[in-house]
Amino acid sequence: MRNSTYFLPTLKETPSEAQIASHRLMLRAGMVRQSAAGIYSWLPLGLRVLNKVADIVRDEQRLAGAQELLMPTIQPAELWKESGRYDDYGKEMLRITDRHAREMLYGPTNEELITALFRDSVKSFKALPKILFHVQWKFRDEVRPRFGVMRGREFLMKDGYSFDIDAEAARRSYNRMFISYMRTFSRLGLKAIPMRADTGPIGGDLSHEFHILAETGESEVFVHKDFIDLDWSRRQVDYDADLQELVDELTGKYAVTGEKRDRAVEARLGDQLVSARGIEVGHIFYFGAKYSRAMNAVVSSPNGEVPVEMGSYGIGVSRLVGALIEANHDAAGIIWPEPVAPFQFGLINLKKGDPACDDVSEQLYAALGSEVLYDDRDERAGVKFAEMDLIGLPWQIAVGPKGLAAGIVEVKRRAGGQRSEMTLEAVLNRFAGPQAR
Amino acid sequence: MRNSTYFLPTLKETPSEAQIASHRLMLRAGMVRQSAAGIYSWLPLGLRVLNKVADIVRDEQRLAGAQELLMPTIQPAELWKESGRYDDYGKEMLRITDRHAREMLYGPTNEELITALFRDSVKSFKALPKILFHVQWKFRDEVRPRFGVMRGREFLMKDGYSFDIDAEAARRSYNRMFISYMRTFSRLGLKAIPMRADTGPIGGDLSHEFHILAETGESEVFVHKDFIDLDWSRRQVDYDADLQELVDELTGKYAVTGEKRDRAVEARLGDQLVSARGIEVGHIFYFGAKYSRAMNAVVSSPNGEVPVEMGSYGIGVSRLVGALIEANHDAAGIIWPEPVAPFQFGLINLKKGDPACDDVSEQLYAALGSEVLYDDRDERAGVKFAEMDLIGLPWQIAVGPKGLAAGIVEVKRRAGGQRSEMTLEAVLNRFAGPQAR
Repeated sequence: MRNSTYFLPTLKETPSEAQIASHRLMLRAGMVRQSAAGIYSWLPLGLRVLNKVADIVRDEQRLAGAQELLMPTIQPAELWKESGRYDDYGKEMLRITDRHAREMLYGPTNEELITALFRDSVKSFKALPKILFHVQWKFRDEVRPRFGVMRGREFLMKDGYSFDIDAEAARRSYNRMFISYMRTFSRLGLKAIPMRADTGPIGGDLSHEFHILAETGESEVFVHKDFIDLDWSRRQVDYDADLQELVDELTGKYAVTGEKRDRAVEARLGDQLVSARGIEVGHIFYFGAKYSRAMNAVVSSPNGEVPVEMGSYGIGVSRLVGALIEANHDAAGIIWPEPVAPFQFGLINLKKGDPACDDVSEQLYAALGSEVLYDDRDERAGVKFAEMDLIGLPWQIAVGPKGLAAGIVEVKRRAGGQRSEMTLEAVLNRFAGPQAR
Repeated sequence: MRNSTYFLPTLKETPSEAQIASHRLMLRAGMVRQSAAGIYSWLPLGLRVLNKVADIVRDEQRLAGAQELLMPTIQPAELWKESGRYDDYGKEMLRITDRHAREMLYGPTNEELITALFRDSVKSFKALPKILFHVQWKFRDEVRPRFGVMRGREFLMKDGYSFDIDAEAARRSYNRMFISYMRTFSRLGLKAIPMRADTGPIGGDLSHEFHILAETGESEVFVHKDFIDLDWSRRQVDYDADLQELVDELTGKYAVTGEKRDRAVEARLGDQLVSARGIEVGHIFYFGAKYSRAMNAVVSSPNGEVPVEMGSYGIGVSRLVGALIEANHDAAGIIWPEPVAPFQFGLINLKKGDPACDDVSEQLYAALGSEVLYDDRDERAGVKFAEMDLIGLPWQIAVGPKGLAAGIVEVKRRAGGQRSEMTLEAVLNRFAGPQAR
C-alpha cells in the first residue's frame, strides 16, 4: 500500500479526550475514529490489526477443537425471559422495540441464543462434546464509556460455549479453553496470567480471568514470577489428553488482582512475588446446567434425558488491540509485535523524485508484497520517520540518495531501535527471499 | 472436518415455513437457523460459504482500488438529521434510545456515517479520489421478512462510497465499481445483468441494479442474449484506464425488469431477446453532492472549497448466498460452484469399521486438508449419499469394500452427476498433488 493513496489520517496533536496511551495512539496513528460515545469506526490501518488478532484467536480456537458459527447481533427478548436474565441485566443491555412492538435487544453476550440453537438441533449425547464459538459485535451500554476501544459500548468479542454430558466432561472442555487461551495470548506476543475470578452475572461455580501485563494496565496485579517468563506460543498441546495437570500447575501459582491480595502468602513467596499492572482480556466460566435447565436444553443419554453441562469463554478482540498497544509502545508511538502488525515493513523514500531513490523504492515495494506500507509522499524525511515510528511497523527501510551512492539502504528495527546498513540485495534476501523471516 | 464431530444439523423434512428453494435448502443442509423473524444464525457450514463470498467481494474491491474499513452497526441519529433522512426513512429504520435517552439507530446503510468520517479526516483535494468500503451487518425492519436470508432484517452488506473532486472524476469511480461488480459476480459463478434503476431513498442522478439469473428468481427480466454468455471472471481490467467504453457497451444492451419493458425495442431485438428470471444482488448510485453539501464535507481545491462528489455501491453478501443456491440446485439439493463451496470434497466411507475402508478414507482425509468433509459416521450408504447431494459439495469421493477389492474408489461430480472410478493414487494426484486443480 502507498501512503499517497492510503486512507491514513494521522494526527500531529494528541486529542484532548484521550486519557490513556492506547487511545491516544490509536487516534493519532489513524487506526480508529469515534462515531458516537464508546462507538468506533475502524480505519484501514486499525482494521488490519483487528483482523489479524481475530484470525489468531480463531486459529487457536480451531486447534482446540472449537467450531465457528455466527449468531446475529439482535436477539429476541423472549430467550432472556426464559433464562430469567432479562430483568436482571439492567441498563447495560441495549433494549430495542421493533416496528411490530416486539421486544428485542442487542446481544451483550450469547448464552441464551446458543442454548436455544443447541436445544433445537442436538437431541442425543452422542453429538457431545461440542464447543461452538463466534466472533461478533456486542453492545453493552456503559454509563461512562472511556479509554477508547478498551471500554467501548460496541465491541468485538470472541465468545465460545461448551456442551457436555456431565460435569467431568465439562471440566475437560473448560481445561481445553483454559490452555488455548494461554496459547492465544502468547501468540499475540502478550504475557497472560490466569486468575481465579468471581462469576458475576453469568453465574456458575468456576471462573478464571486472563490478564495481560502492561506497564500502563488498568489494575494492579501480584503474581508469581514464573508467569513472567512463560511462553506458550511454541508449546505443543495435545488437546485430546487430560489437561488437568497443566491447568493445576498454572492455577497453583499465586496470581491476584489488588483487592484480593493475601499478605501471608505473599510473605512466603518473598522475591518470587512480582507486582505489575494488568489488563483483563479474557474470562471463562463453568456454569453447569444453569441455562440448559432453565431453557430445557436436554439430550438423551443412557441415564435418560439430562440437561447439558455448559461453560462460556470470552476474549475481548477489539479490547485486545488497545491492550496490545498498552503493552507495546514508547514515547514515539506504537511498537507492534510482528504477528499483529498492520504491515511488517515501512518503506521510506527519503527523496521522492530522485530517480535512484524512486527506482530502488519501487523494486522493494514490488518485492515485499502485501505486507509493506510505502511512504511515497513528497514530504520531509523527518515527517516520514516520525510517522513510521508513530504507527510502529516492525521494520523500517529507508532509501536515500546518500545511502544509495554508497550502495546501501538503512534498516531499522522499531523494537529496540537497532539500525543496520544493508545492500538492496541483502534486504531482498532477508525480507523477500525464499528464506525470508 | 469429520461429520461425526461437525455441528451440521441437517433436516430430513422440509420445514413448512420455507417457500423458496434456497430457504428450504439452507435450513435442510444445516447452514442457517432462524433466531427471530428475519434474523438468522449462520451455522458452521453456512458461515464457510458466507466467508468465501465475502472474501471474493473484498478481493475484487481491492483490485478496483477500494480500501476496506469497518464502521459500527449503531449510529447516532444526529448524523441522519444533518442529511435530512432521519424523518424520511420510515419504519424500516430500527430506532434505538440508549440509557442516556440519546437517539441512536441500527444502520440500514452508511452514507451519513462515512460522510462524517471523511469530513473529519480529509481536507484537501490531493487526497482524492478515494473509494472506501466495509462489510458489516445492517438492519432493515421489513414489515414481512421472508424467503430466508434473501429478505431478512439483519443482513450482511458490502457497502462502498466514492469521493471525488468533480463529476467527471466521480463518473470514473462509478465506472470502476460498475466493472468490478461484473467481475465479482462472474467470479462467484453467476451471470450478472446490469440494469438502469431508480435511485429511491438514496437519491441522485444515476443508478444501476445488478441482477443475477436464476430459474427461481424473484422477478421477470428481459435481456439481450449477449449477457447470457458473458464471463468477466477471467477478463483483465485496467482500472486506471478510462472504462467508459466498456460500461457503454454493457449499458447499451437491452436489459429491464418486467415493469419497464419496451415492446418496440423488444420487437426489434427479435430472437436476440431472452426472457429469464433474476435476483437483485447489487445496486450502485451516483448522487453527487447530496450528502457532502448537507453535511459540509468539503475539500480545498484550486477553485476554493468544494463539496465532494460521491457515489455509493452495495452488494448483498448474505443475500448472495441465497441467490447462489437459487441459481445452483436440483431436486436432490444444492450444487455449489467451486469458488464458494463450503468444502471442495465430500469423502464418504461406505463401510465404517472395515479396516481397508477406514485406512483409505483416513489417507484421503489427511491428504485433502481443510477442504474435505469426511463422512465417518456409522450410517447407511444411502443416508450418506443423500446428505452429500443435499449439501452439494463439488466432488464426492466414495470409498467402499467392493471398489477397494478392485483397487478403485468412486468419484462423482455433483454438477452433472458424472461418475468415474479411479485408483487411490489417481485421486491423490488429481486432487491433492502439486498439479491439483
